Amino acid sequence: MFPEFSGKPNQICGVFFFSFLILTARIQAQTQDKDVLFIRSIYDQVLRSGTSYSWLEHISEKIGGRIAGSPQSEQAISFTHTMLDSIGCDTVWNLPCQVKYWYRGSKRETFSLVSHPDLGNQSFKVLALGGSGASAPKGATGEIIEFKSLDEAKTRNKEIPGKIVYFSRAFDQKHLRTFHAYGGAVDQRVFGPNLASKYGATACVIRSMGSRIDPWPHTGVTIFEDSVKRIPAVALSTQDAEILSKLIQKGPVKAKVKTYCEDRGLKPSFSVIGEIRGSEFPEEIILVGGHLDSWDVGGGAHDDGAGCVQAMEVLHTMIKMNYKPKRTIRCVLFMNEENGLAGGLSYAKWSNENKEFHLAAIESDAGGFTPLGFNFDADSSMVKSYAQALGKWSELLESYDLKISKGGSGADIGPLKSQKGLLVGLSPDSQRYFEYHHTEADRIQAVHPRELSLGTAAMASLIYLIDQYGLQ
Amino acid sequence: MFPEFSGKPNQICGVFFFSFLILTARIQAQTQDKDVLFIRSIYDQVLRSGTSYSWLEHISEKIGGRIAGSPQSEQAISFTHTMLDSIGCDTVWNLPCQVKYWYRGSKRETFSLVSHPDLGNQSFKVLALGGSGASAPKGATGEIIEFKSLDEAKTRNKEIPGKIVYFSRAFDQKHLRTFHAYGGAVDQRVFGPNLASKYGATACVIRSMGSRIDPWPHTGVTIFEDSVKRIPAVALSTQDAEILSKLIQKGPVKAKVKTYCEDRGLKPSFSVIGEIRGSEFPEEIILVGGHLDSWDVGGGAHDDGAGCVQAMEVLHTMIKMNYKPKRTIRCVLFMNEENGLAGGLSYAKWSNENKEFHLAAIESDAGGFTPLGFNFDADSSMVKSYAQALGKWSELLESYDLKISKGGSGADIGPLKSQKGLLVGLSPDSQRYFEYHHTEADRIQAVHPRELSLGTAAMASLIYLIDQYGLQ
Repeated sequence: MFPEFSGKPNQICGVFFFSFLILTARIQAQTQDKDVLFIRSIYDQVLRSGTSYSWLEHISEKIGGRIAGSPQSEQAISFTHTMLDSIGCDTVWNLPCQVKYWYRGSKRETFSLVSHPDLGNQSFKVLALGGSGASAPKGATGEIIEFKSLDEAKTRNKEIPGKIVYFSRAFDQKHLRTFHAYGGAVDQRVFGPNLASKYGATACVIRSMGSRIDPWPHTGVTIFEDSVKRIPAVALSTQDAEILSKLIQKGPVKAKVKTYCEDRGLKPSFSVIGEIRGSEFPEEIILVGGHLDSWDVGGGAHDDGAGCVQAMEVLHTMIKMNYKPKRTIRCVLFMNEENGLAGGLSYAKWSNENKEFHLAAIESDAGGFTPLGFNFDADSSMVKSYAQALGKWSELLESYDLKISKGGSGADIGPLKSQKGLLVGLSPDSQRYFEYHHTEADRIQAVHPRELSLGTAAMASLIYLIDQYGLQ
Repeated sequence: MFPEFSGKPNQICGVFFFSFLILTARIQAQTQDKDVLFIRSIYDQVLRSGTSYSWLEHISEKIGGRIAGSPQSEQAISFTHTMLDSIGCDTVWNLPCQVKYWYRGSKRETFSLVSHPDLGNQSFKVLALGGSGASAPKGATGEIIEFKSLDEAKTRNKEIPGKIVYFSRAFDQKHLRTFHAYGGAVDQRVFGPNLASKYGATACVIRSMGSRIDPWPHTGVTIFEDSVKRIPAVALSTQDAEILSKLIQKGPVKAKVKTYCEDRGLKPSFSVIGEIRGSEFPEEIILVGGHLDSWDVGGGAHDDGAGCVQAMEVLHTMIKMNYKPKRTIRCVLFMNEENGLAGGLSYAKWSNENKEFHLAAIESDAGGFTPLGFNFDADSSMVKSYAQALGKWSELLESYDLKISKGGSGADIGPLKSQKGLLVGLSPDSQRYFEYHHTEADRIQAVHPRELSLGTAAMASLIYLIDQYGLQ
């Protein structure tokens, strides 16, 4: 790499410093010196002495996977409540919600071939999809029928009865952001098993929603209509999905799926909230949050332990910097984003009943990677004026590589849209997200401490600006 | 993560699509439809069917570390020449240069404590710095004296004779870009051993130029004046550097350094060049390149195998897309960037002698990570006009998350500055770079295929625009 070539690395620094000066001068024309300095201090504080990574280690490794309703989700509620207390929030409380507790079962699900001419009874590692049902004890058996889309399954539905339906459409790699590739494939997981069941399939297998060819199956929610039988539904790793598709091309493949899932009914649970009360406009709330639940496998490190610890660290940073906000800054760690959204829905209901107004709500739920900017959304009547308000800070934020775009914000804050405040989603680099998402690999090692901290600093900076100037 | 919350992922796609339409409309006001479509096709091509990752696997794993002058560097010359031929360049040739061949030695260097009261003769893993000398066979011994800066060593130089000087200043984590942290610490490695030797040290140890606390020592170049004795100089991992500093705080620490380095003198070598001749302005050259040599440890995957295969893939992509450039597009894989720059200097000399003009030269030498944009540089008389020319494309490039900034370009293309063309450095996300840089960990596993491909697509897109419109 380049800074060494002349043996005079300070010359290179000089170039960077020069461009920094130009940039600073331009920014100062639009915002005040104190803002430039304060945001620089936020980054210094977070990058040099952030505590979010050690919190995340506790959540993802000591507690681990924490599906809503599980004992682990209760531990996560308790731990984050204690941490929000310990950093010096003005108020910390738990907001109740009722979650549907889906349990994978104490025995591990299996997917195996039945007397295949080449491979015998070979097994593949799979993960049952959240919301899917248990097989009969001896398993669900059938010939595998492969479809590339829901439409293909509808068209060829007469061939389905008694078979195991296999949806195998891969991510389209052409997309710049992997979320778009996910969006183009995830209908197979969400709606495929329900469709297969309606047409008489014994079970459903999907190619995992992953962006790379690797050995990790990805779980995730699948939705059955009330009237439709919850058949066994499992995800195969992308690597094994490629193998299965090749086998099917050669001739009929019969398989057996065994799953042990249980619908354990409604359980009381909580979202965890901590806030710093505003000094001038306490009734204007600026929310920062993530979701506390995760899937039951892995550690839910990127999804969404990262978002939770970033949100907590935003408040922690402001407290450590002795910043006294004008508006109320509230950290909300929502329960049950993954399979029900009970936390987000109950929070909005409670907030509306208390006639609250969220001036802005920011969610981090796209992984703890280097932030590239923010997506914003709002009631259509407010989009233009918020775009203008945010535009005033675009140059300052761009100096930290943060771009503001119109786009989706976050699932948990979505129900707040009717309050007509600004909704924002942190938008990190997405290239590696769908290698960890909903898998056993989503552990602390997959999260980089500086990348995580940059997300915290980005959100703290935007919140500081909104707090100082409002959104006029 | 968010696209699932409503169970209707297509709604989320709708939001993205909406913003894409707005963006496209804005871009089309400044560039032509065909440009938007062509750049989209470049990304499709590279992301769906790029070959750069398999080339990189060959270079970093089959060939491995390839310091200039080594047999591995010769294999890399041969392999890349063959690949550039096979993809259908109009011309492929090797340009000679003379490199100084530094050899680490066939025995592994050691750094061990001497009769420490707590730790006995414990050894730490180290890497000798490129350009440093061999110890006497029995090793160089002395009490360790720790300094945080070159200035501190100068001030306290009377304490140095007979000792092992230890430079221990860490990266300052506050910097957004890790290159700035590196720039603020690397003087210790580049100039520290020479200074220590001048003041009578028996050896020099430095804390590795790494951004994370980990067990990897980082090598890199150190520079001795001709009149100064080349003492043994080694890098300790950041993890071990922290341990050593703590030991020294408790009391005197004596150590022994053994190194086996050899200066093997001048060797003939080559940079590798492939080009597609321009159809309208063949005399205007657009260069894209990286450096073919690496350090001798690890696989030189990020530094700079990545830059080489990206540059090759730019030409490959244009050929596969049947694009006939107006200007000459030339891929240059420079030899000896790491410890001498012989390839970059000889290339510029040869080009000047042939009265060539490089309208633009783009180097990728900052790792194969997600690109955040480009840094550009030029002769001061040309900076403003190039900034204006590039500005016309900023919105189109920003739609691919690429920002254009004034800044350093690349070491190898630096000597072309006198031709008064545009110099550009690809600027990827830097958060993880200094965990791999110059270490045994810089292997193919550290490079992500999509991140690598995005760098290729970014450079190909900019080159396409320059080729179509020039820099007026």
